[in-house]
Amino acid sequence: MDVVNVSAMLARFTEHWSPKKIAQVNNYDVRIVKVRGEFTWHQHPDTDEFFLVLDGQLTIQMRDRNVVLAPGELFVVPQGVEHCPRADTETALLLFEPSSVVNTGDAGGDLTAEVEQLA
Amino acid sequence: MDVVNVSAMLARFTEHWSPKKIAQVNNYDVRIVKVRGEFTWHQHPDTDEFFLVLDGQLTIQMRDRNVVLAPGELFVVPQGVEHCPRADTETALLLFEPSSVVNTGDAGGDLTAEVEQLA
Repeated sequence: MDVVNVSAMLARFTEHWSPKKIAQVNNYDVRIVKVRGEFTWHQHPDTDEFFLVLDGQLTIQMRDRNVVLAPGELFVVPQGVEHCPRADTETALLLFEPSSVVNTGDAGGDLTAEVEQLA
Repeated sequence: MDVVNVSAMLARFTEHWSPKKIAQVNNYDVRIVKVRGEFTWHQHPDTDEFFLVLDGQLTIQMRDRNVVLAPGELFVVPQGVEHCPRADTETALLLFEPSSVVNTGDAGGDLTAEVEQLA
């Protein structure tokens, strides 16, 4: 592989809620995604999910509390915990998760996105 | 878990080549480490190893080539590939690797460090 510049990868797409794979570590993907607005309530029954904010601000709504992440802040939603990400302005995230993870988890629906590979 | 601020975690230690765990994703660790100088040649026979530069500049020497990473750039050293990280000035990295990974891989020696958990 070549060196991956995260900012250059972010510049290659504009759509929201559609994760892009930029690296692989064993059977895990490193993905980036741009988000704006509210996603859908869902959970991942088999895996934790890692969020690192690169730009903007992310609120991760959970049933018992919300967390708010600024750039340089990270949070791991535990396996099986329902969550619904929300961003009032465009926000860029870096995700680590098993390559098998589908963005909408158990919820499915129109927001379910194929993971495009950028690098 | 609480939200983890990466910069605040980096401010909590000064030593080099001693990774600190700041989050867990399934059986993988998210670790940060400060480095300066040259590490030791080693490889990880069972796992890829992910490097993201947060600050500074990292050269990853491999037997057939070197790669140089600036802040916001990442690289994955494939399983079994010998490598020797080097940084001419203090450099901060974020690592993503199985929780079982020892920093010196197959090489062992004085630079082998226990992973302290910061968050």
